[in-house]
Amino acid sequence: MDLWLSDYHNEGVKLSIKVESQLYQERSEYQQIDIFESSEFGRLLTLDGQLITTDKDEFFYSEMMVHVAMATNVEIKKVLVLGGCDGGVLKELEKYDMVTQIDVVELDERVIEVSKQYLAYSKQSFADPRVRLFIQDGLRYVRVTKEIYDLIIVDSADPFGINESLFTKEFYGNCYNALSENGILISQQANGFYQEDLDALAHIRRTVASVFPINEVYMTSVPSYAAGYLLFGFSSKQIDPLVNLNIEKWSDKQIMTHFYNPMIHQGAFYLPTYIKEFLENETKH
Amino acid sequence: MDLWLSDYHNEGVKLSIKVESQLYQERSEYQQIDIFESSEFGRLLTLDGQLITTDKDEFFYSEMMVHVAMATNVEIKKVLVLGGCDGGVLKELEKYDMVTQIDVVELDERVIEVSKQYLAYSKQSFADPRVRLFIQDGLRYVRVTKEIYDLIIVDSADPFGINESLFTKEFYGNCYNALSENGILISQQANGFYQEDLDALAHIRRTVASVFPINEVYMTSVPSYAAGYLLFGFSSKQIDPLVNLNIEKWSDKQIMTHFYNPMIHQGAFYLPTYIKEFLENETKH
Repeated sequence: MDLWLSDYHNEGVKLSIKVESQLYQERSEYQQIDIFESSEFGRLLTLDGQLITTDKDEFFYSEMMVHVAMATNVEIKKVLVLGGCDGGVLKELEKYDMVTQIDVVELDERVIEVSKQYLAYSKQSFADPRVRLFIQDGLRYVRVTKEIYDLIIVDSADPFGINESLFTKEFYGNCYNALSENGILISQQANGFYQEDLDALAHIRRTVASVFPINEVYMTSVPSYAAGYLLFGFSSKQIDPLVNLNIEKWSDKQIMTHFYNPMIHQGAFYLPTYIKEFLENETKH
Repeated sequence: MDLWLSDYHNEGVKLSIKVESQLYQERSEYQQIDIFESSEFGRLLTLDGQLITTDKDEFFYSEMMVHVAMATNVEIKKVLVLGGCDGGVLKELEKYDMVTQIDVVELDERVIEVSKQYLAYSKQSFADPRVRLFIQDGLRYVRVTKEIYDLIIVDSADPFGINESLFTKEFYGNCYNALSENGILISQQANGFYQEDLDALAHIRRTVASVFPINEVYMTSVPSYAAGYLLFGFSSKQIDPLVNLNIEKWSDKQIMTHFYNPMIHQGAFYLPTYIKEFLENETKH
């Protein structure tokens, strides 16, 4: 028997991974949750049939989402994670002793429970005493919170669908208000390869640029994702990801990583010409 | 009707692209040659069922294979291309007025003829008067040539199969002898994500390190390739890809690119930690 899981990057492109078995399936209040076992990628989590994370390349994504900010502002103490159901981002944040509080806002509690049961790092990530879990909508949370964070991570898969409210101007405005003066917002920004991803990227860029004075984009490889790479947004009130990168202080902390290092931090902001030109044109409008 | 072309990255992973039609097929003396038309990637060339190039991301590959060397040694005049059947690398080399001679050695003439007929840039690339075409085995060519080149590009898909002879110590030794003092060898080095690619990478690194004093590795995104990225080797007698990068002189030439720029040139050498450590361990043995 051959059992293949196909992740559709769009109507005309799909990545298929041979799976040994489906370990779990559930229809939650919000979405279809599945866990598969594969020999090439280890365990896979899919939501509504879309690949969210795999054992094999989870660290590409989580490390680049966390450590770029942590090495730019080396004083980050309070962190808000919106989404981040599988706990990969938490795992990276918890490597820092200076972090005293990690608030996680996730709409679908079932994804967290399933991740904790099936993904190796997940249970421990959520068990850390610094983590406070809020089961609710991210937009609503940032609208009413009185907390001030040093770092907000929007660990959300998709600018459309159930996470759509995380990509509005109001949302980014509320994030701005919930950030300290040296605070940083990290968000996923599609990849800019296929046309629909370019459209999503343009939409996000225009929205975030209307709120934050500093908006940089960085690129990282994620083999299991569409086009094999992903763009992240780095937004802030005054902190610059290259000017303020503090290699010495970050290195002193001796954080163990498998993907991130201060050199690839810098290289990630050096974008291919076609993406650079696309972003420059978009922000002109 | 749904017609999907599947490129197997290994036994358990495949990328599938919906194709509108198969434009051409031929069994040459050496391999199966196919051309497909797709809406997401434009035209595709496959050899023995393996995806070689697509209209949509050919420039990711060709530009990073050519301009990194051209911006490091800005005096390159004579170039040898081994493989490079589709003409993408030639197209990039021909952007430089200073290049006076491009020798192309390709075993299978039929691939060139099919590329010239079906790929947009190919016919013009091969028509350039600076191009001399040698239909023969690359290893044999470098063994007997008396020419001295400033740049040798090993544009070969795979360290195993029909191109195996391009990855031996004898081959790299002959390349060394055919290079000028400031000459550069650029070669494809697998990706280092799946186990079999790591094995191939280790093999190539050990071989090339036994011949060249300077051996650097750089990484680039190629969405249609396995794992979405590719490693290239930069080998030379004395030229260093970062120390000798000449941004000013390269920029003066006003070469039009869509992917390459001098910043991404530098960033490409800043490797993920797991690849850096793997390469460091391999060269110790």
